[in-house]
Amino acid sequence: MLQRAAPNCGRQPKETMVAFDMESAFRSDLPAAAGEWKPPPDFGFVGGHNDADSIPFAGLAEAAVSALRREGQALATYNLGGSPLGYEPLRQFVADALGTRAAINCDLDEILITSGSLQALDLVNEALLSPGDTVIVEQATYGGMISRLTQRGVNVVGVALDDDGIDPDDLAAVLERLAAEGTTAKYLYTIPTVQNPTGSVLPIERRRRILELAREHEVPIFEDECYADLLWGADRPPALRALDEDNGQVIYCGSFSKSIAPALRVGYLVADPSVIRQLLALKTDAGTGALEQLTLAEFAPTHFDDHVERLTQTLQAKGEAMVDALRHEFGDSVEIVPPQGGIYVWVTFPEGVDTSALVEAAAKVGVEFNPGAGWSADAVDGSRRLRLCFGQPDHDTIRAGVAALAEVVRAETDIGV
Amino acid sequence: MLQRAAPNCGRQPKETMVAFDMESAFRSDLPAAAGEWKPPPDFGFVGGHNDADSIPFAGLAEAAVSALRREGQALATYNLGGSPLGYEPLRQFVADALGTRAAINCDLDEILITSGSLQALDLVNEALLSPGDTVIVEQATYGGMISRLTQRGVNVVGVALDDDGIDPDDLAAVLERLAAEGTTAKYLYTIPTVQNPTGSVLPIERRRRILELAREHEVPIFEDECYADLLWGADRPPALRALDEDNGQVIYCGSFSKSIAPALRVGYLVADPSVIRQLLALKTDAGTGALEQLTLAEFAPTHFDDHVERLTQTLQAKGEAMVDALRHEFGDSVEIVPPQGGIYVWVTFPEGVDTSALVEAAAKVGVEFNPGAGWSADAVDGSRRLRLCFGQPDHDTIRAGVAALAEVVRAETDIGV
Repeated sequence: MLQRAAPNCGRQPKETMVAFDMESAFRSDLPAAAGEWKPPPDFGFVGGHNDADSIPFAGLAEAAVSALRREGQALATYNLGGSPLGYEPLRQFVADALGTRAAINCDLDEILITSGSLQALDLVNEALLSPGDTVIVEQATYGGMISRLTQRGVNVVGVALDDDGIDPDDLAAVLERLAAEGTTAKYLYTIPTVQNPTGSVLPIERRRRILELAREHEVPIFEDECYADLLWGADRPPALRALDEDNGQVIYCGSFSKSIAPALRVGYLVADPSVIRQLLALKTDAGTGALEQLTLAEFAPTHFDDHVERLTQTLQAKGEAMVDALRHEFGDSVEIVPPQGGIYVWVTFPEGVDTSALVEAAAKVGVEFNPGAGWSADAVDGSRRLRLCFGQPDHDTIRAGVAALAEVVRAETDIGV
Repeated sequence: MLQRAAPNCGRQPKETMVAFDMESAFRSDLPAAAGEWKPPPDFGFVGGHNDADSIPFAGLAEAAVSALRREGQALATYNLGGSPLGYEPLRQFVADALGTRAAINCDLDEILITSGSLQALDLVNEALLSPGDTVIVEQATYGGMISRLTQRGVNVVGVALDDDGIDPDDLAAVLERLAAEGTTAKYLYTIPTVQNPTGSVLPIERRRRILELAREHEVPIFEDECYADLLWGADRPPALRALDEDNGQVIYCGSFSKSIAPALRVGYLVADPSVIRQLLALKTDAGTGALEQLTLAEFAPTHFDDHVERLTQTLQAKGEAMVDALRHEFGDSVEIVPPQGGIYVWVTFPEGVDTSALVEAAAKVGVEFNPGAGWSADAVDGSRRLRLCFGQPDHDTIRAGVAALAEVVRAETDIGV
């Protein structure tokens, strides 16, 4: 039976048509349309891209073949014929890895595989947040979370960070102030292990104190450990979710984006089973991509630890190169705290510098960075900071890009560099 | 550097803890939490599952290896370092296939790859719909769309279907009635080619008439052609999007879920570039899974046509087996219109039968079906209907399952079967 469309499909000549105005049908409260995509610049220090040479693509290829040969027919069924929580062997790997690495003791019905950790953020936000709600975040935090909260009409309150992460005394003060206003925050969003963007690790004593405060004020914690596997500067403390194990006040999320590959879209949520089932009801995508789940589940049990150890060494060397380049170019005129892991350096300029104002001049010399305002609960406080990602560029590119950035800072500001 | 969590993570004994009530923090307007997952029954006629023997897993494995060996390093970068609209070779395949199969002439900036077609539905709904809006749907339509619209507080208005799809005269009447009420529908949602659940194909003359009506009333059309590649009973007419090419009033969506595998989560939207860029701004998942995009883009150009032709033959035989079994068991006591393609048969029982009331008894004998109320704009009109999916079960299972369903109908209703 012929299944081709008839060649004459009745198109009218363009000039006779009055084009329909679809935009007039759009909701009025949408975020701005995306701009035209541009290829990355010479010195791309934005985004969460990773080291291309470290992608274990041969191992992933082997894993994909092996999994498809064994279980390919299961692709005929949504969720591979299994639970919509995600492919069971992958959830088993996540449970095992979290037990070893983060001291989280969890059953498979406490894990929901998500289409990247961004879907995890969206599911938690959809479950908990209404316009006018308040969320506490670290003063410097993931820009994608700030924009999500703002888009939902949520009031974002920052808590101070120091070199060890959240300052518990400031958290106590924030919680007291909110209580005095009659406000209970819907949750505290924290990235305790390899904080984004500062790269700090929250010590266990602070974790215990923060949990106490959260319990006292009955504020849930949303713990984001997307970068926690890429840690070189400290032992990994138990997750807040682990320390709170039988209390159920912490929703935890993680990802394979940073440990394996950003373009794979597989993350996970860990929470009590009743919470997971509520979040699952909001996950309306008919499952996370099965080929990526199958491949990761085949690859990870035998390769994850070795791969992550090698990747972490590579990133540590890049991070050190970035810090060295910054010190070489900027001397003492900027504050840098060397990251304990991950792929970012958070740079603080003297008062009076507005990093957003440097974007255009930097772009002209091929440098792209994240201005601090977008990564800060208080945009004014963040305006003299910026985030640089060192995951993708090689050492030479890091050095040349930081030098180019320093030229821009010299030309555009009056700080002595 | 040791990256393992300390073994003593400070857990308190369970009995001393007062568990936190996370549910009390949830929004009050959420859909019900998901139930416990259960393995599929003997006669699973629900869902959009497909024929397991037809999954081209060896070809997909070969494609995955080839793509990963060539472009695996690109996984280090979000969106494989390319446009967030999706992997360019995959968009090129979609453009080529739509040109050949649906007479749609589109550029690559008119295509947005989505994480399954369900994300496509969510993006369009998010862009267009607010509570209280009105959407026109086919009287019998995809249940997942009805539930999405209802969850958003949207008024769902049905338009009559016959064996050829939408009745244009009824659409005209519905549009007139809405206009008289001062209402402009936000869009008409239609599945013109292999309608879900009826399996009909809308003839080209009706397509032209429906476009005229939509233009007259300035109502956008959301055209869902997820099943259109699986067509055996008619030539494929040009898509509404093709017939409306220079007017931009039609947003089109398609999917690889039905033509390749449901557990892969890759779909696509086609619309004017400005519309695509607005929808992209709402796609907050940092890209659709790259491994699935890479694999499909490698597989499809050389294998899609042959694969779909074989799959369609297999499904046609299953569909005929299902129709034969229904006629054998139910005789003239039910109305069936043999589907022109796809994986569903829509069965209409005499007035007075409520198919929802049969679910429990059917489950006891291992039969699962979709009661018609959930697939109908007017739940009362739909209550005497049901949808059966024949994609997954083999011929023997189809026959045995329909016989078991007939037993249930005999026992639970007073219609002579």
